[in-house]
Amino acid sequence: MEKLSALKKFKAACPFLGRTKTSTLRTLCTSVSPRFPTISALTEQATGCPVMGPALTVRSKQLVAGYASVAGNAEVAKIHQSQGVVPPPGATIEMCPHASAAHAAARTAEDLASAAKKKVAAAKADASTAAAAGCPFHKAASTPETAKPTAKPAAATHGVFNYETFYVNELEKKHKDKSYRYFNNINRLAEKFPVAHTSSVKEEVEVWCANDYLGMGNNPVVLETMHRTLDKYGVGAGGTRNIAGNGAMHLGLERELATLHRKDAALVFSSCYVANDATLSTLGAKLPGCVFFSDKMNHASMIQGMRHSGAKRVLFNHNDLEDLENKLKQYPKETPKVIAFESVYSMCGSIGPIKEICDLAEQYGALTFLDEVHAVGLYGPHGAGVAEHLDYDAHKAAGRSPAPIKGSVMDRVDIITGTLGKAYGAVGGYIAGSDDFVDMIRSYAPGFIFTTSLPPAVVSAAHASVVYQKEYVGDRQLKQVNVREVKKRFAEIDIPVVPGPSHIVPVLVGDAALAKAASDKLLSEHNIYVQSINYPTVAVGEERLRITVTPRHTLEQMDKLVRAVDKIFTELKINRTADWKRLGGRASVGLPDAVDPEPIWSDAQLAAAPPTLLNGEKPVVDVQAAEVSRARFNDLLGPVSGPLAGMKEKSETEKLLDATRVLEAALASGGLKLRTGKGSMPTVNALENQMPQPASVAATA
Amino acid sequence: MEKLSALKKFKAACPFLGRTKTSTLRTLCTSVSPRFPTISALTEQATGCPVMGPALTVRSKQLVAGYASVAGNAEVAKIHQSQGVVPPPGATIEMCPHASAAHAAARTAEDLASAAKKKVAAAKADASTAAAAGCPFHKAASTPETAKPTAKPAAATHGVFNYETFYVNELEKKHKDKSYRYFNNINRLAEKFPVAHTSSVKEEVEVWCANDYLGMGNNPVVLETMHRTLDKYGVGAGGTRNIAGNGAMHLGLERELATLHRKDAALVFSSCYVANDATLSTLGAKLPGCVFFSDKMNHASMIQGMRHSGAKRVLFNHNDLEDLENKLKQYPKETPKVIAFESVYSMCGSIGPIKEICDLAEQYGALTFLDEVHAVGLYGPHGAGVAEHLDYDAHKAAGRSPAPIKGSVMDRVDIITGTLGKAYGAVGGYIAGSDDFVDMIRSYAPGFIFTTSLPPAVVSAAHASVVYQKEYVGDRQLKQVNVREVKKRFAEIDIPVVPGPSHIVPVLVGDAALAKAASDKLLSEHNIYVQSINYPTVAVGEERLRITVTPRHTLEQMDKLVRAVDKIFTELKINRTADWKRLGGRASVGLPDAVDPEPIWSDAQLAAAPPTLLNGEKPVVDVQAAEVSRARFNDLLGPVSGPLAGMKEKSETEKLLDATRVLEAALASGGLKLRTGKGSMPTVNALENQMPQPASVAATA
Repeated sequence: MEKLSALKKFKAACPFLGRTKTSTLRTLCTSVSPRFPTISALTEQATGCPVMGPALTVRSKQLVAGYASVAGNAEVAKIHQSQGVVPPPGATIEMCPHASAAHAAARTAEDLASAAKKKVAAAKADASTAAAAGCPFHKAASTPETAKPTAKPAAATHGVFNYETFYVNELEKKHKDKSYRYFNNINRLAEKFPVAHTSSVKEEVEVWCANDYLGMGNNPVVLETMHRTLDKYGVGAGGTRNIAGNGAMHLGLERELATLHRKDAALVFSSCYVANDATLSTLGAKLPGCVFFSDKMNHASMIQGMRHSGAKRVLFNHNDLEDLENKLKQYPKETPKVIAFESVYSMCGSIGPIKEICDLAEQYGALTFLDEVHAVGLYGPHGAGVAEHLDYDAHKAAGRSPAPIKGSVMDRVDIITGTLGKAYGAVGGYIAGSDDFVDMIRSYAPGFIFTTSLPPAVVSAAHASVVYQKEYVGDRQLKQVNVREVKKRFAEIDIPVVPGPSHIVPVLVGDAALAKAASDKLLSEHNIYVQSINYPTVAVGEERLRITVTPRHTLEQMDKLVRAVDKIFTELKINRTADWKRLGGRASVGLPDAVDPEPIWSDAQLAAAPPTLLNGEKPVVDVQAAEVSRARFNDLLGPVSGPLAGMKEKSETEKLLDATRVLEAALASGGLKLRTGKGSMPTVNALENQMPQPASVAATA
Repeated sequence: MEKLSALKKFKAACPFLGRTKTSTLRTLCTSVSPRFPTISALTEQATGCPVMGPALTVRSKQLVAGYASVAGNAEVAKIHQSQGVVPPPGATIEMCPHASAAHAAARTAEDLASAAKKKVAAAKADASTAAAAGCPFHKAASTPETAKPTAKPAAATHGVFNYETFYVNELEKKHKDKSYRYFNNINRLAEKFPVAHTSSVKEEVEVWCANDYLGMGNNPVVLETMHRTLDKYGVGAGGTRNIAGNGAMHLGLERELATLHRKDAALVFSSCYVANDATLSTLGAKLPGCVFFSDKMNHASMIQGMRHSGAKRVLFNHNDLEDLENKLKQYPKETPKVIAFESVYSMCGSIGPIKEICDLAEQYGALTFLDEVHAVGLYGPHGAGVAEHLDYDAHKAAGRSPAPIKGSVMDRVDIITGTLGKAYGAVGGYIAGSDDFVDMIRSYAPGFIFTTSLPPAVVSAAHASVVYQKEYVGDRQLKQVNVREVKKRFAEIDIPVVPGPSHIVPVLVGDAALAKAASDKLLSEHNIYVQSINYPTVAVGEERLRITVTPRHTLEQMDKLVRAVDKIFTELKINRTADWKRLGGRASVGLPDAVDPEPIWSDAQLAAAPPTLLNGEKPVVDVQAAEVSRARFNDLLGPVSGPLAGMKEKSETEKLLDATRVLEAALASGGLKLRTGKGSMPTVNALENQMPQPASVAATA
């Protein structure tokens, strides 16, 4: 009771403390300011207080520990400078009770939470929450005993479950295991890709972790299509697909996606999370006695879908064919089975053995369900994903024909799911498969049926993007060239990148707090945004910085990134590859007998890359891809006008100019000879030889 | 085997039949053409065939039954006329084997499907599917025994489960119980609201069933905001909320929604389906021993969420407080409980007893989870929904203050969920509640965490819409005036409308086939689109046409709708209210002791309606609402330009002109004296008296 009334007193002393929940105070007090890592989030807040703010710069050394550290003095001064605040000469900490009160309040709450048995603690913490809620800004003090929590007036009723305390305890768990998520405020600027502004429009950072893998979110043809559709059909779809929300845009996109994957049909959902969840839960619930075989690294959406189905789920070790076969064997042939797996696993960059899994599926009578979320738009001659990429030449030769290529890997996969929200730069997800399969999901999946369909403008933007990427291979080739470049530079300075054959660049940190600190420092000290990836997204001890490289990141930006990561690894004493080697390796880094996997985009496939934009700032549009993409909409939307005005299309002359720029950049950076685990990459000279017909000439490597 | 080879022969005779699945053929053959109800969908397809097309008009009487009826002759001629096809003089049915082949193929497939025991039938149907797939256009014939199905090359393997047959059987069930859904192709035109074009851009229909309840999907301020955001931030968000997909737009919308509902916090999801599913499944899975109490009419998204949680679910009869209390009583007070219900039930238009459920929740220690999906934007002085509407004056007086109104119904509800895809005209959903509750869902719900966030442009459009509707009450008032008008007119001609206090106008048909036929006839003969609502969305025998009236439907359009429904009820001999009375009533229609429920928008609340747009074609913008809405974005997006050019704002003079038009329209249509179950509505004269200060004058009724 003593502690509670102390808490009460602190809260009464300060309007901010009074109206802020105890749990929030604790969070602010114990978490680091994302912009100024040497001070707490609470101190950053306090700089905005008319009393505390000036006091902080003048007397920061006198402040109680935890509220502002001595090291934070300079940071506080910096904030004030940027705000134009001049501390009054005589300002002292004694003028304001906030600092000590905030700290004591947070500490009191912490003590209460950890006190005695769980149930007792919960009851007390509730009382403390109630006290916090009971004294907002303009309210007279009341004793804790009579205070009522905001959200549940009846919580004073004896014997009922206390929901607010329950929420607080659940959040406490997240804080304790460091899995509580702080969202950064990142606003990606279309005209400055890959640059974004933070919560302040004037503060710009370079984004190195977005999943707009190709920058299609600001491709002029995509933007133009979305503007035109918006003017023609308005914002929302206005209903479910069955009731007023089904139009030419939705049907057109689904036809396009079916064609892309050379399947009978496709179906679009709100997201691929929903597509996976709805499809797997419907399949598992309907197929009699269905058993799922699920790769252990599968995405949450697939896991949820399988769980929701109620069907049996058998996990197999990541990409482990032997384990999968041993498990398949244990079920009768006639049992319906679904093998659920991914092509590119987004957190480690590994790639599923699609062909081999199809072999097993046929042998044991299983359906194959392949998530190509991190692959569509990025692999294959038309961007259909890794399954297409595995028969690159055959698919390239087949061109725009929608006919399946018999015996090809993509044809053998039964169900493919993909997203419109990553490489295609929009939002939404889809499935593709046989007519009757898609029709069954369309007819039975509540997650498809009972929801407002995507806005026509979003759907047409995604459609334009899919068509553009089908026609133009240059973006995804250049992306891989840049990925190799970044991996090469990291390797040169012993920065540990989890080895993989895909476009994902996971930089191993190996500790949750360190990973967050590294991410925070990159943001605050280098204006580089790379989100740290912690448990539960990756295993404890395998925390990482997941870097995504786009075709539009410049060599200059790469230099800056590599230098910044190098500096922060030194400053924070994060293990390099050599350290992991000494420790026996972790997350495939520094293993004794490691062989770098062959990149899925082979040297030969990359050699034909049109050398655009490696040094390019603004997006330039491929004429042919733009024309084909637009043709899809001209009937419905009429001629292009308005927002198109600013769009720049790439002429043959410009393509040659691009080539010159690439050469210059390559010379400046010491050549573009790319190292890979096996084989070698063609030099820029090899690329140069192919300038006149970039897409048609075969590789020379 | 005999039948199979016959099927094979038919398919070989015609390229169309050859490449079309047997199941699709059956569907085409047995379903009615949506545009030409006297012929089948297959016949409509056949008019496009170079051989069959001409033959159809010349010799339609000789065609086999089911492929084209005699009555359909005129329709076929009409199609040809519109296509400019002149049948060759000597064209005869004998020129083409398609007609009889198609019919026989479909019949054969049907026979096969219903033959003998299920397993045997399944095997045969598979073989027939295989045969169909085995002979596409350019392929040489193969015997059915060696043919392989497209989707599953290994299906020939003995003993494995046959997935394709399974899908076909599941679809067959939908065809049999008439719940198979045919999506109409409806493209709502922003500039012609509520008009849409069908699959042909030249064919326009009036939409009377969309959930863009207020026409906000083409409100110029909303469109303008979306265009501006698109230019600034591009198309997609580029990541999850945790990784690069969290920006000022998302945070701003969430703040706005929290304020709207006077709650601590709000959280935005891909859709309200996802919001409901993710929130209920997380709550149920986390709260120890949680029991759900769920209204029997709850939406699929809530049902799925509760199921997915694995927690116990107790159903209570729709809006039945006694039943709910009896069930709550059976559980100990300390058991965590969640009462899940809706404010407006969208298929019948009933309204949940929110206040009384809050009373029970407090008494028995339950959380209240209220779905306001069909109410946000439409009820309350700020559009916060029915919970706000129940304390209309208090909330109106509180104005823009975000502070909760203690003891108000909205304050007593723990969790409110809403959509941005219906009255707000965009897409997406959200929850609002206490800080810690929202933070817990944010931290634990996979459906929130692991999905790409909504595009900034969509989010800002929704935000602009929410702000606009917060400021401007006129749209939702006028909507209710129009709803009353349509209900009144239907009542005058004895068309059975399921009685309810909300904006939903459910016209009872009472039979699946009749409901579909009525919907098809409205579309093809009257250019009016009202989707029929069949099982499982409503109970068998309660099939209906669900009509949604907007503030932008004109009196002329209402006249047309009412006349068309009247005509079709006569033509199809659909029961009117008097018929249901004789039969003892159904779905609350024609019950002996029925009392019409009081509309939730009272006469007094409607009397202050600014009389805009009742006769209005193009959207006009409320100056104040537009200014407040824009102010939210000016910091980020800069000054308004470009797409705004065409926007028209409403001046005081125009408001008066609107008023004049309303008077004229009222006189022309015999006055606007609206009838309701109880009480009476002010006449247009009462409205007229308030022209000068439309929003501030109290009701006179």
